[in-house]
Amino acid sequence: MTDWFFVPAQAPDEDFRIQAAAHQNQLTKPPGSLGRLEASAIALSAMQATATPRVDDALIVIFAGDHGIAARGVSAFPQAVTAEMVRNFARGGAAISVLAKLHGARFEVVNCGTVSVIEPLEGVRDCRVAAGTRDFSREAAMSESQLRAALNIGRDVIARAIVSSKPDIFIAGDMGIANTSSAAALAALLLNEDAAALTGPGTGVSGDALASKRRIIADAVMRYRDICTNSFDVLRSVGGFEIAAMTGAYIHAAQQHIPVLIDGYIATAAALAARALNPSCAQWFIASHQSAEPAHGRMLDALGLKALLQLDMRLGEGSGAAVALPLLKSACALHASMATFASAGVSGG
Amino acid sequence: MTDWFFVPAQAPDEDFRIQAAAHQNQLTKPPGSLGRLEASAIALSAMQATATPRVDDALIVIFAGDHGIAARGVSAFPQAVTAEMVRNFARGGAAISVLAKLHGARFEVVNCGTVSVIEPLEGVRDCRVAAGTRDFSREAAMSESQLRAALNIGRDVIARAIVSSKPDIFIAGDMGIANTSSAAALAALLLNEDAAALTGPGTGVSGDALASKRRIIADAVMRYRDICTNSFDVLRSVGGFEIAAMTGAYIHAAQQHIPVLIDGYIATAAALAARALNPSCAQWFIASHQSAEPAHGRMLDALGLKALLQLDMRLGEGSGAAVALPLLKSACALHASMATFASAGVSGG
Repeated sequence: MTDWFFVPAQAPDEDFRIQAAAHQNQLTKPPGSLGRLEASAIALSAMQATATPRVDDALIVIFAGDHGIAARGVSAFPQAVTAEMVRNFARGGAAISVLAKLHGARFEVVNCGTVSVIEPLEGVRDCRVAAGTRDFSREAAMSESQLRAALNIGRDVIARAIVSSKPDIFIAGDMGIANTSSAAALAALLLNEDAAALTGPGTGVSGDALASKRRIIADAVMRYRDICTNSFDVLRSVGGFEIAAMTGAYIHAAQQHIPVLIDGYIATAAALAARALNPSCAQWFIASHQSAEPAHGRMLDALGLKALLQLDMRLGEGSGAAVALPLLKSACALHASMATFASAGVSGG
Repeated sequence: MTDWFFVPAQAPDEDFRIQAAAHQNQLTKPPGSLGRLEASAIALSAMQATATPRVDDALIVIFAGDHGIAARGVSAFPQAVTAEMVRNFARGGAAISVLAKLHGARFEVVNCGTVSVIEPLEGVRDCRVAAGTRDFSREAAMSESQLRAALNIGRDVIARAIVSSKPDIFIAGDMGIANTSSAAALAALLLNEDAAALTGPGTGVSGDALASKRRIIADAVMRYRDICTNSFDVLRSVGGFEIAAMTGAYIHAAQQHIPVLIDGYIATAAALAARALNPSCAQWFIASHQSAEPAHGRMLDALGLKALLQLDMRLGEGSGAAVALPLLKSACALHASMATFASAGVSGG
């Protein structure tokens, strides 16, 4: 039996895309003058197979997990911060908590594998695969069954969400100290590019610490390049529980025809993994923002995506995607509610 | 007596700026990781002289006017469209009407001088200075008393708005067929730069029509460069009623300590005029978006501003500023509602 994550997603609806593009040209504005808002509304029309796309019901899920590689001193923050931030998400104090509330999104946190057990918290689902991944600079981060468990976490998030109703759009956020190291290694292996060039400061390492981070990742990537024979194995070797769960969620969102609004560096590494496992799902991706993490632009390019925002953000948590959400809301409102030249009695160009 | 528009605006509050910057560094995120959202919240704190900046009460005013230069065939649309769009604004069918409603803004349209009288419409204030400006390729666009009247329209918009309560932020939008020609000439004269290089397609002229537009504007600019002795005279010679009203509104908003969110090409030309007349007001400007009109980036640079958005928009009407408004809303919510490291019990970096 084919694994669920290999089952192709359908393509967005071409008829609705064509109809939406024609509609845009009837609205009372010079053709094309709403720029990327027009393109966004058209893309959402095709994905949602509707003449009136909307993003009012956004699903934001934060995936948290710890990384064995943190032991190598690759982050500016101690590993305890992963669990501390899970509590902060639940209490409403984190950036993404504030943004989710502001934008009226459904909001959930999934613990995919923090080092220590976290006490039960409202809005946090405990799905710990293990007490953090293993240090990928020494051994593969996950076993095969752990990777499957993590991918399934993501699938199940989508499956549970659509029971009540299908969300208009899905945002995955990440939390995991040292996860930029995992993301850099993942991107380098999946894109077959230089690991050091794809590695940046993350939460804020610089100088010798950054040089060391680059070296550790580059060494590991060199080793796994020879060992790994497919993208499943790459994700298993250098990924993280939260990154793999995001990968699974992206794939299943696409399989369920839910547009995916991709956040920053970590989310884009997960998107690269999702595309590598299941190329069809990339048609459901929209890029929200380009992170200040230097290699993020390169990763978006590789996905054929162009971010809506460039605000020098580098927080993760889905925060860039949440900040971009109102741009899509504006795009949908304009598409649905502007008058046409004919209805408004305005002379065409 | 000094003309009102020369009276300096106070500077934003430095104490609140410093306090806001310190507060940002206490919030549960790597320092600086919210990028330009942090800078925006800090700037708004200083302008509003408060620890909790907000943009919930936005005032959006559209200034409409016709341009004599339209007779030279510089626009892709007939002049009748200015009045037709005023009706479309009032009926809620224009892009800015949709966005103002979506974002819960106060919304007003001011007719500063359409060619023909427009029947009374709810939400449209008739302040026609004259039946369009004169063709600046042949003679000065306005008389001195007409320019004063137009500047006063803008001042009065702000003065009326603050009677009920001071808005948190002010957006001026423009409507006026051929007004990119006026804006290009204005920018070329105020910045002492090449007029042809500052002239772009506007609503969509290209080929011979664009070459002709460039020539007409460059010729006029060459003439006025020798004649005009100050920026008041430049604005009188090549400005428009709606552009001058926007200029007056920007100056008075700054005098009243109201942050100004600058829209695209036309709005930025008005901002250049406002700064030229009254340099102090530029401290109250925030750039919303960079237009697809090629010279807009250069004009923002000249103001020392960097746009929040680059979405290839080129509609005017304040639409780019209205689309950027939720970014500031997110910035304010994050500034006000995120937990600090201390309050959340999160370990610092």
